[in-house]
Amino acid sequence: MSLISVGTMAFDAIETPFGKTDQIVGGSATYVAYAASNFIKPVQQISIIGYDFPKEELEELKSRGVEMDGVELVTDKKSFFWSGRYHEDMNSRDTLITDLNVLADFKPKVPEAYQGAEFLMLGNLSPDIQLSVINQLRERPRLIVMDTMNFWMEIALDDLKKVLKYVDVLLVNDAEARQLTGQFSLVKAAKKILAMGPKYLIIKKGEHGALLFDSDSVFFAPALPLEDVFDPTGAGDTFAGGFIGHLAKTGDISFENMKRGIIVGSAMASFCVEKFGPTRLKEISKSDISSRIQQFKDLVSFEIELV
Amino acid sequence: MSLISVGTMAFDAIETPFGKTDQIVGGSATYVAYAASNFIKPVQQISIIGYDFPKEELEELKSRGVEMDGVELVTDKKSFFWSGRYHEDMNSRDTLITDLNVLADFKPKVPEAYQGAEFLMLGNLSPDIQLSVINQLRERPRLIVMDTMNFWMEIALDDLKKVLKYVDVLLVNDAEARQLTGQFSLVKAAKKILAMGPKYLIIKKGEHGALLFDSDSVFFAPALPLEDVFDPTGAGDTFAGGFIGHLAKTGDISFENMKRGIIVGSAMASFCVEKFGPTRLKEISKSDISSRIQQFKDLVSFEIELV
Repeated sequence: MSLISVGTMAFDAIETPFGKTDQIVGGSATYVAYAASNFIKPVQQISIIGYDFPKEELEELKSRGVEMDGVELVTDKKSFFWSGRYHEDMNSRDTLITDLNVLADFKPKVPEAYQGAEFLMLGNLSPDIQLSVINQLRERPRLIVMDTMNFWMEIALDDLKKVLKYVDVLLVNDAEARQLTGQFSLVKAAKKILAMGPKYLIIKKGEHGALLFDSDSVFFAPALPLEDVFDPTGAGDTFAGGFIGHLAKTGDISFENMKRGIIVGSAMASFCVEKFGPTRLKEISKSDISSRIQQFKDLVSFEIELV
Repeated sequence: MSLISVGTMAFDAIETPFGKTDQIVGGSATYVAYAASNFIKPVQQISIIGYDFPKEELEELKSRGVEMDGVELVTDKKSFFWSGRYHEDMNSRDTLITDLNVLADFKPKVPEAYQGAEFLMLGNLSPDIQLSVINQLRERPRLIVMDTMNFWMEIALDDLKKVLKYVDVLLVNDAEARQLTGQFSLVKAAKKILAMGPKYLIIKKGEHGALLFDSDSVFFAPALPLEDVFDPTGAGDTFAGGFIGHLAKTGDISFENMKRGIIVGSAMASFCVEKFGPTRLKEISKSDISSRIQQFKDLVSFEIELV
């Protein structure tokens, strides 16, 4: 099994009620790679970086089985940079700075060596870039998972709807599901989205967990109640990486196994928020992950007799 | 086993995005009784009503095993009346009218026939009224469950803290848990509340489910994803009635059984919101309840191998 992950590799500067960072490594594909590489190797990365992206970070990722053939290095430009400030509830944030830098020129080329990948993770990027990756793959992957955000619904809705016809799983948050459909009820929103193309929909609700829908079932996974959410940046991408990493590892794309994938993704995301940036994801071991998954089982398991 | 339920029996007038009612029957003890009487009889009601409270409603409740010895009828005053308007998200609402009427004189007297009850549900009332009921019971119930709200935290915090020392389970919503403790993190808030007296804490999060804490465990139950939440009035009281009804039926007050109680309460609340007032609670059968509980099992159940 192999997994292609397309997205940004970038810098963030983050302020939360708990502290503030200078420029640290971030980007959707970075988080996906740190999460997914716990479950599947190789992770075949497609991204673009500037001259300032740290060599050590690339080496660290390579040592975890992340392939860099699809990562373009632009030697005379800086990497994509985002800066934001979280509100006290950690569910909402203000963007302070967005410097596209190399991202303005991103025209991903799928390396020949990546052809035949069975799993494709399309991180949050402009829909036409997402579509260009799908179109370059000679063989359709078994599973295409797509992330997006409100920004693309506002400026590129038609393109976004075009990509939706090609993907198997769409990942959005609750506000985005509502925006995309004009439905406040998430159950009604899910029905509308599943009619747009995806066979599965995951609605991320941050501290309130995540919902998985297909045309006739729904599954709910909670977020772990944590004493402190230190920095939510990258939690959604880490969730996506854990989800698709588990599916790629097992090679099983049934609804039942997607439920497990969501628990794995939730467990990975619960680590991500414990420290700034991907710091915590670099520290954890297989046994940390197993015991965190056990916590999720304990959190929701109950036995009840129906009379 | 028997259960005393103390609270209001009242009228509400409700506006939601889906419609508007004239004055309909409501009140915390009304919802508790309709929910709990599915599981335990008798429900020994303590409340106060005016001349306008419908006889048919009292008969309907009696036919379900609800005893009215503790319900005082004031023949020259009206019943408590509340009117409110829900916002589009259904999680927040504005109070339009609060007419205390008979409630201004409520000094509950525990009937002799109620002495010896093993379960006590203290609905949302002023803390001194809640305490007076506890003090009238010659034998301490095995389990005392208390509901309260932000209003009492603002005007009667000292009294509220006094009652907390006597109760086993406190029920509040997430905003109230934060207000009571000054902690944004619900995990930290739970620790502080458990240090105030209760051995168990249930934090209700509306459409985002409910959390049960004791000093070293946490359990999470989701709310059922519904197409329409028609009217959330009484959902919290219905949850409480299902919860304590299940505990009283089984006579088991372990953490494990409280988990089941929370699922039962969540199932009952999911019916409550489907129609205005307690309408839906009067329609449902035992088998409706069982199949709803099965839906909750399906919603959260997953099998995962830890490697």
